[in-house]
Amino acid sequence: MAKKKYAIGVDMGASFTKIGLVDENGNISNETELSTTDYKTPKNFVDALALQVQLIAGIAPGEVSGVGIGAPNANYHSGAINNSANLPWKEYFPLRDMLMEAIDMPVKITNDAKAAAQGELLFGKAKGMKDFILLTLGTGVGSGIVSNGQLVYGHDGMAGELGHIIAKPNGRPCGCGRKGCLETYASATGILNTAQKIMMANGLIPFQTSREITEAAMIGNPMALEVFNQTGKVLGKVLAHVHTVLSPEAIIFFGGLANARDFLLVPTRKAFEEELLFVYKEDKPELMISGLQHKNAAILGAAAMVI
Amino acid sequence: MAKKKYAIGVDMGASFTKIGLVDENGNISNETELSTTDYKTPKNFVDALALQVQLIAGIAPGEVSGVGIGAPNANYHSGAINNSANLPWKEYFPLRDMLMEAIDMPVKITNDAKAAAQGELLFGKAKGMKDFILLTLGTGVGSGIVSNGQLVYGHDGMAGELGHIIAKPNGRPCGCGRKGCLETYASATGILNTAQKIMMANGLIPFQTSREITEAAMIGNPMALEVFNQTGKVLGKVLAHVHTVLSPEAIIFFGGLANARDFLLVPTRKAFEEELLFVYKEDKPELMISGLQHKNAAILGAAAMVI
Repeated sequence: MAKKKYAIGVDMGASFTKIGLVDENGNISNETELSTTDYKTPKNFVDALALQVQLIAGIAPGEVSGVGIGAPNANYHSGAINNSANLPWKEYFPLRDMLMEAIDMPVKITNDAKAAAQGELLFGKAKGMKDFILLTLGTGVGSGIVSNGQLVYGHDGMAGELGHIIAKPNGRPCGCGRKGCLETYASATGILNTAQKIMMANGLIPFQTSREITEAAMIGNPMALEVFNQTGKVLGKVLAHVHTVLSPEAIIFFGGLANARDFLLVPTRKAFEEELLFVYKEDKPELMISGLQHKNAAILGAAAMVI
Repeated sequence: MAKKKYAIGVDMGASFTKIGLVDENGNISNETELSTTDYKTPKNFVDALALQVQLIAGIAPGEVSGVGIGAPNANYHSGAINNSANLPWKEYFPLRDMLMEAIDMPVKITNDAKAAAQGELLFGKAKGMKDFILLTLGTGVGSGIVSNGQLVYGHDGMAGELGHIIAKPNGRPCGCGRKGCLETYASATGILNTAQKIMMANGLIPFQTSREITEAAMIGNPMALEVFNQTGKVLGKVLAHVHTVLSPEAIIFFGGLANARDFLLVPTRKAFEEELLFVYKEDKPELMISGLQHKNAAILGAAAMVI
């Protein structure tokens, strides 16, 4: 019998970096973690990461094909991280090459959303799909686009910044310096802003987290339901335009806001279908929640790049 | 010495269908043409086309790898044409399979804009590029998207309907039933509408063709220049959003309006760069006119699918 194949997945986050051994069926074992902020320089961090990776590779019960890393601002083409708003080091550093040199194994890096799309393709609901979009609805809004079975990176590795499509001309100010970006409406921050407006207009104390909004919606709170309605309206409209570019089979939601499930999906689908160009209406794409929503999708996705 | 490779390219249009033998360097020979409207049924047309294809294949001085067809509403995945607004037959017909059966050679079909993108990739300015968008600015606005070296078809073969991205909410009515589609501003019809508004407001008789507008711009007519300014503003803004999705190396303009060259390019580039997300500003994509603008691009592009 052929031995199982393995890859090591790394989910590099602002606070913690999680590392795990992933088999070809998407099972994670030997999970371990580093405190990202403990390391003064990228070099110190890579040294510690290399050690953990070698330990895990040493005990793997089969061939390890390489290491995949999902990290904020990571560029697949250059293999580098530059000017990340979330990581402790602001300087440019060639993470892929630094680690590859230290461990002598293939290494690939990409950003969080593109890693999640890889995970969804190999282990989640996108299995067997050739064209889909994975939308991450968290602190920000990101995306991983798969076309013809392959991740769309663009010429510079920076395709898929769907959070920065203008959803409302002259709308809410965005961190990018422009106004009305999708991210200012459909992220955790965006939905809290929407909630604040609705609740303060009704003389109520606003929700403090997006999770509270979901919990309130679950017990039928009309304000919370209205927040999701308004959010879905903005999101669905933008997605209809993105569909015109890519015509995917499915658009899959992942991340904190995706926990709201139908509270978000139903109004988004309504706005999406209303706005959709007629040629797409016969064979409409599905809008769905990620199959890895409560799994360690970042590790799985990172490993999926090299398995 | 190895013999040159050839393919047969077919540019199927509403009035005429042009057929030519294309070599691997993009030279066309043995061109011939059918009057599309002469044939009562798709079957009659395919019989005539099969005969021409076999005649050309018979005299080719090397191996012919297949037949590529660019046609309105042609679907790459299904190989069929359905409900074309421009062809004489409204019914569904499986053009690819019908021709393949008649001639016993590989056949591929796709729509005009996707064929043009293939041609640009193999024989035009996109040689060596892996990520670009070919925008056709003619009677309508279409596009062929290349990502990672491959055409983006979408799950149903209908990706790239960029003409139907909403450029202005509640803008001009579009044939698709919605309002404000890019096509209502940046096509030949769209630019004539813009000219009409500007010139009638100034008590002048409007231009009758988009070519007249270009000719007037060439001699410095301020109305014509203003028409291109307004058109470029709308087009550039939409393209900045599309860039956010795909991050291509270049956006290439093809078709009637592209003959205006810098009169269109300059204001479009200005609006595009103003609207572009900051992460793309360091390594901005190029906006350019097609390298096949005055060649028989439709035949070249169709042949490029199979060569």
